Amino acid sequence: MKQEDLSSLESVRFRYRAIRHPRMKLILKVQDQILTSLREFLRNEGFTEILAPIIGPATDPGIRGAKQVSIQYYDAPFKIMSSMILYKQMIISSVEKIFALSPNIRLEPPESTKTARHLAEFRQIDLEMIYASYDDAMNTAEELLISVVRDVRGNCSEELKGLGRELNELRGPFKRLTHKEAVELLRSKGYTMSYVEEIPWDAEVALSTWHETPFFVYDYPLTSRGFYDREDPNRPGILRDFDMLYPEGFGEAISGGEREHTYEGVLKRMKLTGVDPDEYSWYLQMLKEGVPHSVGFGIGVERLTRWICGLKTIWEAVPFPKVPGIASP
Amino acid sequence: MKQEDLSSLESVRFRYRAIRHPRMKLILKVQDQILTSLREFLRNEGFTEILAPIIGPATDPGIRGAKQVSIQYYDAPFKIMSSMILYKQMIISSVEKIFALSPNIRLEPPESTKTARHLAEFRQIDLEMIYASYDDAMNTAEELLISVVRDVRGNCSEELKGLGRELNELRGPFKRLTHKEAVELLRSKGYTMSYVEEIPWDAEVALSTWHETPFFVYDYPLTSRGFYDREDPNRPGILRDFDMLYPEGFGEAISGGEREHTYEGVLKRMKLTGVDPDEYSWYLQMLKEGVPHSVGFGIGVERLTRWICGLKTIWEAVPFPKVPGIASP
Repeated sequence: MKQEDLSSLESVRFRYRAIRHPRMKLILKVQDQILTSLREFLRNEGFTEILAPIIGPATDPGIRGAKQVSIQYYDAPFKIMSSMILYKQMIISSVEKIFALSPNIRLEPPESTKTARHLAEFRQIDLEMIYASYDDAMNTAEELLISVVRDVRGNCSEELKGLGRELNELRGPFKRLTHKEAVELLRSKGYTMSYVEEIPWDAEVALSTWHETPFFVYDYPLTSRGFYDREDPNRPGILRDFDMLYPEGFGEAISGGEREHTYEGVLKRMKLTGVDPDEYSWYLQMLKEGVPHSVGFGIGVERLTRWICGLKTIWEAVPFPKVPGIASP
Repeated sequence: MKQEDLSSLESVRFRYRAIRHPRMKLILKVQDQILTSLREFLRNEGFTEILAPIIGPATDPGIRGAKQVSIQYYDAPFKIMSSMILYKQMIISSVEKIFALSPNIRLEPPESTKTARHLAEFRQIDLEMIYASYDDAMNTAEELLISVVRDVRGNCSEELKGLGRELNELRGPFKRLTHKEAVELLRSKGYTMSYVEEIPWDAEVALSTWHETPFFVYDYPLTSRGFYDREDPNRPGILRDFDMLYPEGFGEAISGGEREHTYEGVLKRMKLTGVDPDEYSWYLQMLKEGVPHSVGFGIGVERLTRWICGLKTIWEAVPFPKVPGIASP
């Protein structure tokens, strides 16, 4: 049986052939270690694992141009989760620190295939903590990543060797750039950048390429993110949120932030971002009745696997990849 | 804030209120332990955790009257997974023993609400082993359950006490009844039963009620199950498959079996069960090219949680329950 190159799109269409490639087994062994390490770290930090929702009446609208999937759920219009963020704000009223392996669907435009880092189906380890700040969350993210790299280096050295990956030990603290500083750095290198928008994919990759260890970008502008990222009360227009980026051109690792959790605040932001409040009725009712302040983030499991293993494409980092635009198994 | 009874349907509709009920926290703590124990046991047995698919061109048709959910995936008609069974037959060509926390959607009829043990959205720990028999699988299932109960008793005694649950230590071997023996037992107690059909819900509950420890029913008749359960080559009409049932009326725990893995065999069974082969083109092409013999099963996480915690309804066993017919968060 012919064994396709795991990074080709042909291998995605005929995965039942390509899956026999010896590299797949090595990658899956490392991924198993990554999942184990993520959970061990979080349990040791006092997080409880919960079951993530798969579908619901509404989901995360802040997905940068990707489309949500609508379904018919008995008599009601439902969505497949694009992220479980709305539910994380619910659960912390029961358990103060939670995490979940959450399933997500985002129909990215087929052109995104060329970034080699977008999947239409992916999983995050999603976590949330009550009454904490985005500094706390960045610290947790940093320690989490250091811990995973240490475990993989310790337990999967043969697999890393087989994959030709040299993975260096990580040491904190990771560099932390404000969005403004990141924009200034990119401008100084010739990129046309806006202070009030998301960092475009190509600029994000460039920023990532210039770094040799993971780093944070924080304090994104209000106009660049969804309604749930909290605006700093003392610095209007600045969100208390962050991304973590992998080095070596691998790009975005984590997205997180403090939550806007007041009914009035969210409603105002929904209007600003053009989101229809009627679609979020249970969520708004919940906020009206009151939820605690919290912070959280999600770390994509496939992207983490890709970076750890040093893979050319994201579709090597998962056994059954859904590449945008390709109707494969 | 009013705290609803977690077992009411009202509590499902307004979960953001009910979730604050002190019982929820106890249940979630036990569930976290259950997930940890399941994975620890399986890793110790040499299983590798993989990422389960969420959607795909086709999914498990053998879901006893529940409906699959169709979606539009770019230009193609896709389904949300009702189980990952087809994919388990693919992955064992790479890794010989795998498991996954798999997300599943099955639109059960709204009447199923009265069984108190059906959810439209649920998760299984799904596992598969290459070249093993259904006896091996039953042994694994038995040891798995014994191990989970031991861990929960050891680490969550306070939570069990808070929930008013007396959970006894389990000892093997669990009783193993053939489907024929189960039917005879039920007939002897006055149930109208067929030797060639599934055991109906009410009879299954009765059977479960008469037992004080988990038990197996195996060797189901050919006509009662999907195309993927393997017919015994020496006993035509008998499948090499099994269910595990919880005692005390809690009903089905596990469903599993050896896989029909030949192209011709599956095609014949598809015709028999009225499944359109055109919908399973990638799967049939894979079988044509050859996959190894394997066995596997799935254990529902919410039902396991329900039994371990002794909960009146399945919708107490999950933070964000989707009860058939109710469009709740």
